[in-house]
Amino acid sequence: MPKHIKKRSQKVGLPPGTLVHIGEKKTEKAKVTYLDYDELHCGEREIENLDGGIQSQGAPAVTWINVDGLHQVEVLEKLGDHFGLHPLVLEDILNTDQRPKIDDYGGFLYIVLRMLNEDGRGDGIDTEQVSVILGPSFVISFQEREGDVFDPVRQRIRTGKGRIRKLGADYLAYSLLDSVVDNYFGILERLGEEIEVLEDELVTNPTRNTLHTLHRLKREMILLSRAVWPLREVISALERAESPLVKESTAIYLRDVYDHTIQVIDTIETYRDMLSGMLDIYLSSISNRMNEVMKVLTIIATIFIPITFVAGIYGMNFKYMPELEWPWAYPAVLFVMLAAAGSMLLYFRGKRWL
Amino acid sequence: MPKHIKKRSQKVGLPPGTLVHIGEKKTEKAKVTYLDYDELHCGEREIENLDGGIQSQGAPAVTWINVDGLHQVEVLEKLGDHFGLHPLVLEDILNTDQRPKIDDYGGFLYIVLRMLNEDGRGDGIDTEQVSVILGPSFVISFQEREGDVFDPVRQRIRTGKGRIRKLGADYLAYSLLDSVVDNYFGILERLGEEIEVLEDELVTNPTRNTLHTLHRLKREMILLSRAVWPLREVISALERAESPLVKESTAIYLRDVYDHTIQVIDTIETYRDMLSGMLDIYLSSISNRMNEVMKVLTIIATIFIPITFVAGIYGMNFKYMPELEWPWAYPAVLFVMLAAAGSMLLYFRGKRWL
Amino acid sequence: MPKHIKKRSQKVGLPPGTLVHIGEKKTEKAKVTYLDYDELHCGEREIENLDGGIQSQGAPAVTWINVDGLHQVEVLEKLGDHFGLHPLVLEDILNTDQRPKIDDYGGFLYIVLRMLNEDGRGDGIDTEQVSVILGPSFVISFQEREGDVFDPVRQRIRTGKGRIRKLGADYLAYSLLDSVVDNYFGILERLGEEIEVLEDELVTNPTRNTLHTLHRLKREMILLSRAVWPLREVISALERAESPLVKESTAIYLRDVYDHTIQVIDTIETYRDMLSGMLDIYLSSISNRMNEVMKVLTIIATIFIPITFVAGIYGMNFKYMPELEWPWAYPAVLFVMLAAAGSMLLYFRGKRWL
Amino acid sequence: MPKHIKKRSQKVGLPPGTLVHIGEKKTEKAKVTYLDYDELHCGEREIENLDGGIQSQGAPAVTWINVDGLHQVEVLEKLGDHFGLHPLVLEDILNTDQRPKIDDYGGFLYIVLRMLNEDGRGDGIDTEQVSVILGPSFVISFQEREGDVFDPVRQRIRTGKGRIRKLGADYLAYSLLDSVVDNYFGILERLGEEIEVLEDELVTNPTRNTLHTLHRLKREMILLSRAVWPLREVISALERAESPLVKESTAIYLRDVYDHTIQVIDTIETYRDMLSGMLDIYLSSISNRMNEVMKVLTIIATIFIPITFVAGIYGMNFKYMPELEWPWAYPAVLFVMLAAAGSMLLYFRGKRWL
Amino acid sequence: MPKHIKKRSQKVGLPPGTLVHIGEKKTEKAKVTYLDYDELHCGEREIENLDGGIQSQGAPAVTWINVDGLHQVEVLEKLGDHFGLHPLVLEDILNTDQRPKIDDYGGFLYIVLRMLNEDGRGDGIDTEQVSVILGPSFVISFQEREGDVFDPVRQRIRTGKGRIRKLGADYLAYSLLDSVVDNYFGILERLGEEIEVLEDELVTNPTRNTLHTLHRLKREMILLSRAVWPLREVISALERAESPLVKESTAIYLRDVYDHTIQVIDTIETYRDMLSGMLDIYLSSISNRMNEVMKVLTIIATIFIPITFVAGIYGMNFKYMPELEWPWAYPAVLFVMLAAAGSMLLYFRGKRWL
Repeated sequence: MPKHIKKRSQKVGLPPGTLVHIGEKKTEKAKVTYLDYDELHCGEREIENLDGGIQSQGAPAVTWINVDGLHQVEVLEKLGDHFGLHPLVLEDILNTDQRPKIDDYGGFLYIVLRMLNEDGRGDGIDTEQVSVILGPSFVISFQEREGDVFDPVRQRIRTGKGRIRKLGADYLAYSLLDSVVDNYFGILERLGEEIEVLEDELVTNPTRNTLHTLHRLKREMILLSRAVWPLREVISALERAESPLVKESTAIYLRDVYDHTIQVIDTIETYRDMLSGMLDIYLSSISNRMNEVMKVLTIIATIFIPITFVAGIYGMNFKYMPELEWPWAYPAVLFVMLAAAGSMLLYFRGKRWL
Repeated sequence: MPKHIKKRSQKVGLPPGTLVHIGEKKTEKAKVTYLDYDELHCGEREIENLDGGIQSQGAPAVTWINVDGLHQVEVLEKLGDHFGLHPLVLEDILNTDQRPKIDDYGGFLYIVLRMLNEDGRGDGIDTEQVSVILGPSFVISFQEREGDVFDPVRQRIRTGKGRIRKLGADYLAYSLLDSVVDNYFGILERLGEEIEVLEDELVTNPTRNTLHTLHRLKREMILLSRAVWPLREVISALERAESPLVKESTAIYLRDVYDHTIQVIDTIETYRDMLSGMLDIYLSSISNRMNEVMKVLTIIATIFIPITFVAGIYGMNFKYMPELEWPWAYPAVLFVMLAAAGSMLLYFRGKRWL
Repeated sequence: MPKHIKKRSQKVGLPPGTLVHIGEKKTEKAKVTYLDYDELHCGEREIENLDGGIQSQGAPAVTWINVDGLHQVEVLEKLGDHFGLHPLVLEDILNTDQRPKIDDYGGFLYIVLRMLNEDGRGDGIDTEQVSVILGPSFVISFQEREGDVFDPVRQRIRTGKGRIRKLGADYLAYSLLDSVVDNYFGILERLGEEIEVLEDELVTNPTRNTLHTLHRLKREMILLSRAVWPLREVISALERAESPLVKESTAIYLRDVYDHTIQVIDTIETYRDMLSGMLDIYLSSISNRMNEVMKVLTIIATIFIPITFVAGIYGMNFKYMPELEWPWAYPAVLFVMLAAAGSMLLYFRGKRWL
Repeated sequence: MPKHIKKRSQKVGLPPGTLVHIGEKKTEKAKVTYLDYDELHCGEREIENLDGGIQSQGAPAVTWINVDGLHQVEVLEKLGDHFGLHPLVLEDILNTDQRPKIDDYGGFLYIVLRMLNEDGRGDGIDTEQVSVILGPSFVISFQEREGDVFDPVRQRIRTGKGRIRKLGADYLAYSLLDSVVDNYFGILERLGEEIEVLEDELVTNPTRNTLHTLHRLKREMILLSRAVWPLREVISALERAESPLVKESTAIYLRDVYDHTIQVIDTIETYRDMLSGMLDIYLSSISNRMNEVMKVLTIIATIFIPITFVAGIYGMNFKYMPELEWPWAYPAVLFVMLAAAGSMLLYFRGKRWL
Repeated sequence: MPKHIKKRSQKVGLPPGTLVHIGEKKTEKAKVTYLDYDELHCGEREIENLDGGIQSQGAPAVTWINVDGLHQVEVLEKLGDHFGLHPLVLEDILNTDQRPKIDDYGGFLYIVLRMLNEDGRGDGIDTEQVSVILGPSFVISFQEREGDVFDPVRQRIRTGKGRIRKLGADYLAYSLLDSVVDNYFGILERLGEEIEVLEDELVTNPTRNTLHTLHRLKREMILLSRAVWPLREVISALERAESPLVKESTAIYLRDVYDHTIQVIDTIETYRDMLSGMLDIYLSSISNRMNEVMKVLTIIATIFIPITFVAGIYGMNFKYMPELEWPWAYPAVLFVMLAAAGSMLLYFRGKRWL
């Protein structure tokens, strides 16, 4: 099970802005990649050492710095120094249990997203914090570990496919957002299939395992819901273009990704409603089966207990039991037993228990 | 069961505006019909080949192009070129899992609706995406497959019945909306009848099948609800006439279709409440019947177990059991047994179990 | 059970404004009564034939036309012609499954209300649509069948009691609204009494019938709730006096009827909460009783099965069973059995099952 | 059980403003007390007869008239005449099933509160309507029966303790409100204690009675909630000082009583959540105990039924049963029975049923 | 269990502003500590006796007075006199069952917070009221008992670490708020771990104790939720900087603590949803186990009851039972019994009960 809350307590009492990485260490070494481009050219390199500062060749239209791995706090500090980031922003980047939000710091926008990953053991969803900083001509993105979600964007920049090379940093930030939201659809597809399988199982052969899968899916939906709901407001705030950093022309694309987010939320809510309904069905099924078990017991007991009693009567050792001497008594008693059993069966048929 | 989510994952990583049809291919060949009319005349033809462009004869007041089938992407591209549609619009038309929405692109309005169809196998409801583009003097509608929901509108245009020939493109768009909403009433009527049948079944003879029908209806209501709720906002946005494309005079008709939508939502919510109540009743019924089964078992066991014990006593083979020799012992024991059974029956009657 | 949705499908595809009566035909012949009054005089007559138009004597302050029965479409058409009503209004009057609403058509206000009637068979509530049209000096009211809810208002006009003769058409419209809302209190009283009876039944002797009454009441509450909730907005819109048709002086009376509506809604919600609680109690009661049944079975079985086994032992026919020969064996075995049964009883008392 | 709805139906059809007392007659004779005070002096008397009008000595700063008992309609009429109260106000005072509200009639404010009383039989809460009319220099309060909730206020006026003598009529109205809200805390304390007792009972020994207490408390919470929720808006409206009758300086006190009201609502909601949780626990407890009962039955039956069968075998009377002749057969069979019973016990221990 | 409501009833009837301590007396003697600092120096002392007034040395930038223990009313009165606090504020400080709120008294802001403490017995959470008064250059904080939550802040002031010495009283108030909210994370971590343990227990071996832990956690979540929800509005009101007491530069820190509060609320809601889901699983598990118990009983009974009956038949003592004489009758009967038992076993396997 993914942890629901991270070890934040180690920070209790420290002054605000203190940089401590909260969360699992998910990668060995922080990896910093640098990419700058304008309509005509595009340069890309990995930065080994941030000590020399970040030099850009010429005056590129857009600079994109991507950091994978957060546990090396000094990397952040240097980036913070270079781009003039507020200490609270650096602190938030390191506290990897943030909910999606957007903060306007005047000179730049700070956006927190949550990326969803199927965790390695194949039985659950893990969330990872992605921070995006959007400046006038730069975008800095932070991931907790190396991932390939942003690769298609990088590829599009390299090849100059689509509009991305012609547009500014805000379009790049949008592209990253779009990648994250697109990623949700894949997760939801997988969950949707699991729900359908579960639903079939529920109808044909519900087991104790069905219940636990149901429980796991419900819990995952809760986590998903918490990760995606606040995103709606984040994108809506971006779209309303309250900051000069987001150009009018990008708003139409933000509306598109907003629509996608709504659709993701909608699907999550639908799934939650369906899972609730399925639990009711499960409970009803158990009750139904208990009923069936009870009926079998009752039928057997009700047929045999009375006739066993009759056999008990004639097993008594009283000296004076005239029936015992009658020649036809035995077959008569057998017939009486058969008739009793038969009438019981008819009674049960009448009650539709058979 | 209708799929809840479509294979959107195939698009992950493509730049926005890439045209890929997402959804089942529901018809063989896209069919494009062209209809133009003003108060005096009305022309209609099927367009085989869009290569020659779309020529209209004279200057008709309103042009209506209807496209059935979305998998031929080139048809869309040509229409997009001709009418100057934004690539994101074309993308949305092809992504057939949109929720109802309205987007104002300045020169035209893009409206997404969801049409409901009973699916062929008679056991569920399928939803289909209908896109409507409203321009100053044209309407373009896209359906996933050929349907006859818009036929009455076409018929009214041909015969010139009603106001439709005298009014503009916005009235035509309203008429299409109205057709879709009217279509909902039919679906709801059918579901309402099914619910009434189910309710009777619940009272008279609930079976395991009742439960599954209940579950299916609940799931359909969830899907219906998701399809219709956002429509309210769509029509409300249209009615508030924020766009010059919608004339003041059409607002009154939009309010009418808005009222219908509210009524559809209201009915869906009523049905959902009723279905919830029915599940409670079902669960109570099962418990009740279990109670009944248990009572039968308990009565039989409680009457016969003690007297079988008495028979067991006198079936023992002890040498010294004086009662066995008494002449009236046998009838006395029988009488005792009868009395025990009788008093048990009285006890159960006292408890109202009989 | 009252139908939840009316056969609206027969209208699918007709142009808006087509006049078709949707709903049961509840009365034989439409009855049109005409009443005009001012502070000094008051005239009243039944209109047999609308062909001659509607002549009013002199210039009365207020004219009130009441129509009982909607299936004669031509009556509506003539009234529509005479008072210049919009076709959509006439259509709405005939579609008797509207939810309460208010539409401002400039020259007049169109108000839809739902009246509640206990249906004839004594087992449910039926709703009826009442349409009220408020013009500058006239009120037209439409009911689905003849009813006596408006009689007190008519009586007050005839006798000149209260303020009604001195005030305008808006006060008359308010009076009609007030009659309809007052009518709700009667229905709620009846339901409240039924709920109290049910609650007693639940505590003393819950039966399968209790469950069905509970289910019926819950369903009626759903229907009631849907009929009354929108009324709140209707009256609130009227009270905010957005139309010059409603005078300032009438607002205070509308606030009064608004308060009554809130009270009706409040009572309905209270009843719904109470009915939900009662279902939980019912389910708990069933479980409790099942527990009791099981205890009886378990006590009987647990006491008699072991001692019956002992009797079975000494009923075996082995040649070498020394106990059988002992003279005190039989009473000793009887004592052992008694002791076993007694200790079982003590055990159950310890568990508080007795 | 307190009645949920009062016999309002007797008023159906009467014109608005007709004075009929709706509700139980809770006291023998209406009692009218008159109190006027300013910073320096304070006069108090009981008014026997209102015929002579209400004379005040000198020009007191504030006059407070308190009426206990509403069934003497003529008392109200005279007060209404004297202070120029609107007939609808008088009607509302008499209709004792109002929800809390505030109406601004220009010259005075009309406030409805609901006071809570533990009813005499010690098993429930009764609500009583308190009406307060706040004029420029007078306050009139109406209670359904004599009560002592306002006594501390009266005492403070007499002794001149606190600010009350120095401040105006609005502060007096606030003091009455505060008394009513303070009264709620006492009720909630009593309910809180009952809930704690119930919670202990639930853990240690839940009985059928626990269920009914739970049900009663839930119902009381529903009624409480309905009585207190609207009060929030009433005080909030007063505090926003929309009327010149409420002075700026009193707003701070109103905010205080507003906070108290929020706290009451908060506590009620907490209790409702807790009671809901307790019902779930109760249901689980019943199921748990049923499980226990079933286990006892199953263990006994599963141990004894098979060995009783073995005894039955050797009780058969076949001529050729060689075992019967063996000398060690009887002890061997006894041993087999013991072994079977023992292995069953081990099996149950393995399943943790023992 | 922490008390849900405190003994407020002892105050009923007293005039507003009367100072009575409501709540448990949690510490022996009120302890007042005085701390003043500016960028350069910092003085600290404990105040034994407030009679001499509060003298500050020089003109410090910020004065912080912290009071632990509220039952000594005279301490409050003196502070109130010295700083000119409104009697209602003093009253609220003493009524320790306030919900979080902020009141703007012009010259100062009064903030109520609720601190969470794990209570001593290790089985529950206790809440404590913390009041903070923020003036232009002073902060007064009140705790119900001595605690160490504010120690890190004090330490930071002493050592001059962080920004705190350079900034004003509003930053100090923020720091106190931040300490309280940080404290919540610790509590939530502990609860989160308890929930995970419970979840494992639920899957592997649910007991009656699991249910009670679940119930306790649910109740704690209700209390937590009530304590934290209103805090959101409090901080939001502070952040919107409606008062000149809160400087622009502090707003960014308040936004940070606001984000933390949202995160706490989010986590609480997630936990509540998870606990609800767990109760459903618990109920299903009980039903499942009951099913299992019933199956064992039914299998045993259904196999042995019929063959015991057969044994009973041949235990009868009829004179004429020809089978008894047959030499192979006994083995044949044994074989029939075996076959019956075997076919029952096959039947149960077919039903998947084995």
